[in-house]
Amino acid sequence: MKGRHDQVRAIAWQDHKLRLLDQRILPAQIIYLEYEDAPAVADAIRDMVVRGAPAIGITAAYGMVLSAMQHRNTLGWRDSMEEDMATLAESRPTAVNLFWALERIRPLLDQAHGDELIDLLEREAIAIHEDDIAANHSMGDLGAALIEGGGVLTHCNAGALATGGYGTALGVIRSAYAQGRISHVYADETRPWLQGARLTAWEMVQDEIPVSILCEGAAASLMQSGRVSWVVVGSDRIAANGDVANKIGTYGVAIMARYHGVKFMVAAPTTTIDMQAESGADIPIEQRDISEVLGLAGRQHAATGAGAINPAFDVTPAALVDAIVTEKGVVIQPDAQKIRALMEG
Amino acid sequence: MKGRHDQVRAIAWQDHKLRLLDQRILPAQIIYLEYEDAPAVADAIRDMVVRGAPAIGITAAYGMVLSAMQHRNTLGWRDSMEEDMATLAESRPTAVNLFWALERIRPLLDQAHGDELIDLLEREAIAIHEDDIAANHSMGDLGAALIEGGGVLTHCNAGALATGGYGTALGVIRSAYAQGRISHVYADETRPWLQGARLTAWEMVQDEIPVSILCEGAAASLMQSGRVSWVVVGSDRIAANGDVANKIGTYGVAIMARYHGVKFMVAAPTTTIDMQAESGADIPIEQRDISEVLGLAGRQHAATGAGAINPAFDVTPAALVDAIVTEKGVVIQPDAQKIRALMEG
Repeated sequence: MKGRHDQVRAIAWQDHKLRLLDQRILPAQIIYLEYEDAPAVADAIRDMVVRGAPAIGITAAYGMVLSAMQHRNTLGWRDSMEEDMATLAESRPTAVNLFWALERIRPLLDQAHGDELIDLLEREAIAIHEDDIAANHSMGDLGAALIEGGGVLTHCNAGALATGGYGTALGVIRSAYAQGRISHVYADETRPWLQGARLTAWEMVQDEIPVSILCEGAAASLMQSGRVSWVVVGSDRIAANGDVANKIGTYGVAIMARYHGVKFMVAAPTTTIDMQAESGADIPIEQRDISEVLGLAGRQHAATGAGAINPAFDVTPAALVDAIVTEKGVVIQPDAQKIRALMEG
Repeated sequence: MKGRHDQVRAIAWQDHKLRLLDQRILPAQIIYLEYEDAPAVADAIRDMVVRGAPAIGITAAYGMVLSAMQHRNTLGWRDSMEEDMATLAESRPTAVNLFWALERIRPLLDQAHGDELIDLLEREAIAIHEDDIAANHSMGDLGAALIEGGGVLTHCNAGALATGGYGTALGVIRSAYAQGRISHVYADETRPWLQGARLTAWEMVQDEIPVSILCEGAAASLMQSGRVSWVVVGSDRIAANGDVANKIGTYGVAIMARYHGVKFMVAAPTTTIDMQAESGADIPIEQRDISEVLGLAGRQHAATGAGAINPAFDVTPAALVDAIVTEKGVVIQPDAQKIRALMEG
């Protein structure tokens, strides 16, 4: 079997301690940072030590275990934990998995306290983490079956680093490569954070899957050359009608794919589907600091005095999506009815 | 009148000396490098001290003046000058203005020698330079008349720095802004060289034209928001059928513009039109070193072991172009017949 599948973990929970791989400095340095309380975890999410919708959700769940450990023996433990939950929820607005994970934690606060609550939350956080990995393997199989050969293009990083492990889009790519259904992976470098060049390429190199990085601007001519049969991406939130929020640039890639007859696949667990968002218009889009656009790694290269826009995500309308792949099944040409059937099925 | 129009010069010819503004380190440093022979000028073009199709053509013409100055009193002056001409022609393959300028110089080698040849070539190079600036002002007026308001998006730098002065796409933008036809300029940062963030934004700031930089990936959602009415770009070579080679990423922007009903304008002097290239398929596309994609400013950020693709240009089919603006007139919805009529008119 091709590919190695022993990816590095973005999130490590051991001996009741949370350690996060600092993804801001990958791949130059592999450093884990340790966290002891929820506000620090919220900062880590905001500052992109950890990123990727599923990974953020898992991290927030562990953050609530830390919150229980810190506050269990205090008088106002319940209020403190509610406050921590609010702080975690405010860390980033777009990825719905964050809110989903916290909603899964919240009712447990009524079921126990003290050490018992810690155990309960820890079991739940680990279950969220393990369920996510299992979902990614299911998606890998389901998504790979759609790919019939050639190269694929991916945008940003929806890999082991963005999830509990294995990855959503990169899970599909890993499975498809292992089955001989993919010959080459093209990775958009994904400015401003370069998750494609730094993280996706790193994961592919580790798995010995051939990967070529390209600047976003080269995607259209790559498709024009016929070297790509599918675009495969992850998602931060999918609306009830199948509109897909994902890393800025995804929407443009979807437009180019449709223009060239290249298929467009979104791989995401059902925890990414937000049935409360009727369409993409209901998904809040995070606007990040413009210094991220004006420079790189803290060094400004742009002309002084120029402004910038820095939306972190965009919304691809369902009409441009050929397949949404979840652990519960595949939705071809998604719409509200098909998404509802998936979620109720 | 809005706008200042006293742009810095990329190419300075004074006292029989060629000085080029080093565009690789703009806007952090404003340094002119001095050149004394044609091979060094060819290196400067290859290494992107000077870039932009019209600027490359002008620079090559001055390079041939230097060649005459160096070789005039040698026995094999004619062979040496032919060799210099070949070296200049090999510096970059896509911008046709380079070959056009050299073709304009070549017959003069038969008309004089010695000091007389130097004078002849110098007059010709200065004429090429001044004609280019005049063409840009004509294009500015013609292109501006097409724009009826709102924001415009440009890609790469087709400004004063890419030409003899004033600019092609930025000439149109300058004229349109001066006439109150543009409210805001959006500049794609344009990886890998960041000409948008470094050069276009710098020119706009100097002219006090409001500019916002965006990563290429944000262009589609910007168009979706309705803030852009036109895309205005330059070109490195236009085929006889109206296909347009320009900086990598242009083709994707054209696809996104068409999808959103945003108009797409190419501003280029007729020296950029190559009647020998029947279509875009006949235009050679420069592939540059992949280190440009794997890092920035000499520092690698990409995962070690990953490959990359780095085409410097792409070809936008004429069908996606709403207007080609030249100094001789505007071609709406270009095709082979209309381009021929323009060139013969």
